[in-house]
Amino acid sequence: MSLSLNQWTTRRWSVAEAVDGCVRHGVEAIGLWRQEVAAQGLDETIALVEAAGLRVSSLCRGGFLTADTSAAFAAALDDNRRAVDEAAALGASCLVMVVGGLPGVTPGEPLAAFSRDLAGARARVAEALAALAPYAGERGVRLALEPLHPVYCPDRAVLSTLGQALDLAERYPVEQVGVVVDTFHVWWDPQVFEQIARAGDRIASYQVCDYLHPLPADVLLGRGMMGDGVIDFAPITEAVRAAGYTGDVEVEIFNAAVWAADPDEVVTTMKARYASLVERPQRAV
Amino acid sequence: MSLSLNQWTTRRWSVAEAVDGCVRHGVEAIGLWRQEVAAQGLDETIALVEAAGLRVSSLCRGGFLTADTSAAFAAALDDNRRAVDEAAALGASCLVMVVGGLPGVTPGEPLAAFSRDLAGARARVAEALAALAPYAGERGVRLALEPLHPVYCPDRAVLSTLGQALDLAERYPVEQVGVVVDTFHVWWDPQVFEQIARAGDRIASYQVCDYLHPLPADVLLGRGMMGDGVIDFAPITEAVRAAGYTGDVEVEIFNAAVWAADPDEVVTTMKARYASLVERPQRAV
Repeated sequence: MSLSLNQWTTRRWSVAEAVDGCVRHGVEAIGLWRQEVAAQGLDETIALVEAAGLRVSSLCRGGFLTADTSAAFAAALDDNRRAVDEAAALGASCLVMVVGGLPGVTPGEPLAAFSRDLAGARARVAEALAALAPYAGERGVRLALEPLHPVYCPDRAVLSTLGQALDLAERYPVEQVGVVVDTFHVWWDPQVFEQIARAGDRIASYQVCDYLHPLPADVLLGRGMMGDGVIDFAPITEAVRAAGYTGDVEVEIFNAAVWAADPDEVVTTMKARYASLVERPQRAV
Repeated sequence: MSLSLNQWTTRRWSVAEAVDGCVRHGVEAIGLWRQEVAAQGLDETIALVEAAGLRVSSLCRGGFLTADTSAAFAAALDDNRRAVDEAAALGASCLVMVVGGLPGVTPGEPLAAFSRDLAGARARVAEALAALAPYAGERGVRLALEPLHPVYCPDRAVLSTLGQALDLAERYPVEQVGVVVDTFHVWWDPQVFEQIARAGDRIASYQVCDYLHPLPADVLLGRGMMGDGVIDFAPITEAVRAAGYTGDVEVEIFNAAVWAADPDEVVTTMKARYASLVERPQRAV
């Protein structure tokens, strides 16, 4: 396994700056975000990444597939096909899929018109996957279903556990649909070790960051630098390794203080924490 | 099934006031909290409840069994034995068990000295249960293991899913150890229907309240009046009924606005929402 910078961790950096930062700090891979790639330009991003010799460990993100009107659902599928095309052009190891929450629930906003039909939302994710998996497979792109912590079930992902993600993924060839194991989202799950073992080569991405306590008022920003929260990275990392994962390990942090800090210092800290807590896991109890 | 007022919903009311409120509003059962019972006096509480003809649907709460020093663990067991004694004296249908979080993590407080050993914390819950289940059984008290939403895993309950609670409960006779199904905690769980069916007569308590979006800054207070959040109560209630549960349904709300409101108005609203969303479930989509 080797360290990758998910560019959201150094959110102030453009794609060009993040690529340059990776090279300067000896980080060999980068996780890119679609809107940042669009801002830089897709072709320019491809050129920058190739010139730097970086691997693209993921493209974030496809998903948001739970809309309950046919027009919105069709638009979401179209957008996801474009995301697959971009992932293919970038040679990304996977396209991370955040599947979406209850229809009409807006992240961070008060409830307005929305649906409580959780089962229906989950059914539409399955339906969308049936359309997108072959499309991705034809283009050599692997969809990576990301179960999100249940605190995000209303607004971001009705996919809440690794077991649930695998139930969906296993309907498709392993090269078409995998899963993301993200420590923030799975650390609490009583089945996490059993499900990581079950996942095996379905693990398309391993992402690490810590789970802060108490969570900040905006729970989206509860992701911390490794060591700043409650997660013991050793057993989860050992399980991912034992499952056969040999890919990149993305550090993806959504955190107001991290975003406010000097990105070079963030990368320096990230490398040190990764080395002591993830790469050479020691029980951090 | 029939409606019960968990007294924390009308937190400003003493035990005497809550008992009186139940009688005035025609609510036949009450869920009591230990500290409020202590403030009223155990004997006086017993007399008040008996005179009013109320059922005690639960005593809240035992638990906090994850301490990693032998002295603190022993003290927790002693406290839980006292809670069992109180539940027996009150004739409570069950003693709700909130098992505790990571050792040293204080609810709502910044991290100080604590342990990241989640597996160890879970093992101590199992160890404690082996001591407490027979003690409870001898006194005719049923322990009700409450899985809490994973957002509370760091500080309140390392018991995070109904399936995990049943794995523990099934080691003991059904009259000694049951589980709590609380809509707030389980609504997101992809296995919830399967696990409710599995639970069958292990269901010791069914608690209802809604899951607010967005959550307030203190996530403990994210419990709302039924209808104010994202939960569809119909399918969960149907599953609990189909599992054979015929007990009381407690409404337990932790919510700053509900606590600030006139308790009589809160009970009036509670009865109306219970009738339309829980008792005669209609899909509230």
